[in-house]
Amino acid sequence: MPEIEFHFDFLSPYGYFASKFVEELASRHGRKVSWHPMLLGVSVMKVMGLKPLLETPLKGDYVRRDVARQSRLLQLPLGRDVDRPPTSSLVPARAVCWAKVHAPQTVSDLVRSFYSAMWARGIDFNEPADLLRAELPQSVNHAVLVTAAGHPEAAQLLRQSVELSIAKGVFGSPTILIDGEPFWGFDRFDQAERWMQVGGW
Amino acid sequence: MPEIEFHFDFLSPYGYFASKFVEELASRHGRKVSWHPMLLGVSVMKVMGLKPLLETPLKGDYVRRDVARQSRLLQLPLGRDVDRPPTSSLVPARAVCWAKVHAPQTVSDLVRSFYSAMWARGIDFNEPADLLRAELPQSVNHAVLVTAAGHPEAAQLLRQSVELSIAKGVFGSPTILIDGEPFWGFDRFDQAERWMQVGGW
Repeated sequence: MPEIEFHFDFLSPYGYFASKFVEELASRHGRKVSWHPMLLGVSVMKVMGLKPLLETPLKGDYVRRDVARQSRLLQLPLGRDVDRPPTSSLVPARAVCWAKVHAPQTVSDLVRSFYSAMWARGIDFNEPADLLRAELPQSVNHAVLVTAAGHPEAAQLLRQSVELSIAKGVFGSPTILIDGEPFWGFDRFDQAERWMQVGGW
Repeated sequence: MPEIEFHFDFLSPYGYFASKFVEELASRHGRKVSWHPMLLGVSVMKVMGLKPLLETPLKGDYVRRDVARQSRLLQLPLGRDVDRPPTSSLVPARAVCWAKVHAPQTVSDLVRSFYSAMWARGIDFNEPADLLRAELPQSVNHAVLVTAAGHPEAAQLLRQSVELSIAKGVFGSPTILIDGEPFWGFDRFDQAERWMQVGGW
C-alpha cells in the first residue's frame, strides 16, 4: 500500500493536531501512514540557525494565540499552556523509533497516545519510566517499551530518523511527504489532499 | 462599513496571492479592506532577529517549491523566479501610503497593480519612475504619483505604517486583522472566513 510519510516532533502543537487527522487523510486515498520522528532542535536551531518559535518576538505571541484558537476550532483538548511546552521529546521519539523496528503494529497508537499525553493532558516525559503515564496501547509490553526507550539502540535509531528527515528537506513539524512531494504544516493538509485526488498539478 | 485590515509587503509572494482574494473575502461579510504596507526587513530582521526566508537553509528550498506549486493551483501567473525576489518594496509601499492620504479611492487598484507587476510580470521598482511600468489605474495622475513616491512625506507615512503594524503584533505578510483578531498567512483565510461567519470561537 502506498504511504504518506508523516514527519513530526512531539514538541510541536501543530504536529499534535495533525496526528489526529493524518490517518483519515491517508485512508481516504488508499494509503497508510509511516511515522517519522524528527527533532526541531536539530533542524531549526542547528541546520537553519533560527530561534525556537516561542522565543521569537511577535511570532511567539501569535503562535500562542493561534494554537489555542485552533484547538478550540478542532475541538481538540489543550491541556497545557503553550507558554510551557513539553520539556523534551527525546524519550517518546526514541520509543517510537524502537517500536518501528520491534513492534511496528503499535506505532500509530503510540504516536497518538504520546501526543495526547503531552498536549491534551500536559504530561512531560523526562525519563523512560514517565512513558507509563501515557495511555499506552495494550498491544505493547509496557515494561519492555520503557527499557527500550532508555537503550542506546533507540537513541541511535532516532539519530538516523532525524538525519533522514533533514536529508529529505524536512525542517518543520508536521511535514507530510506524498511520493516525495513535501507539504509543510497542518494548514497544507488541504493541498495535500488535492494533490492525491488529482495526482499533482 | 467594518474593515478587514490587510497588512502586506510587496516582497511577499503569499501577499501577492492573498491580494487577489482579500476583497472578495471582505465583501462576502459586508466589510471593506484597509491596506497596510509593512516591511518584512524591519519586522523579520530587526525585531524578530531572523534571516530572510529564502536565505534560510531547507526552508528556502521549500518556499520556492511551495510558491510555484500554489501559483499553479490558484492559476495566478508567476512571472519571476522565486529565487530572484523583487529588489525592494520601498517605492511601491511609499506610493500606496501616499495614496491612502491623497487618493484613497485608488489604493486597492494600486496594490493589485503593483503586486501584479512585481510577481506576475517580474518588474522591479527601484526608482519612483519605475512605477510607470505597472498598469496604473487611470483614476490616479501618474506623474503626480511618481513625484509623490519620491517625496519625504511618502517615506514618513510608510515609516508610520510599519511602526503601526509592528505595534499591532504583525510580523509576517500577509496578515489580516478582523476587529483586532490576527490571522497570519494566506493559509489562514479559511479560519478568518469562519471567524466572520460565526463571530469568533
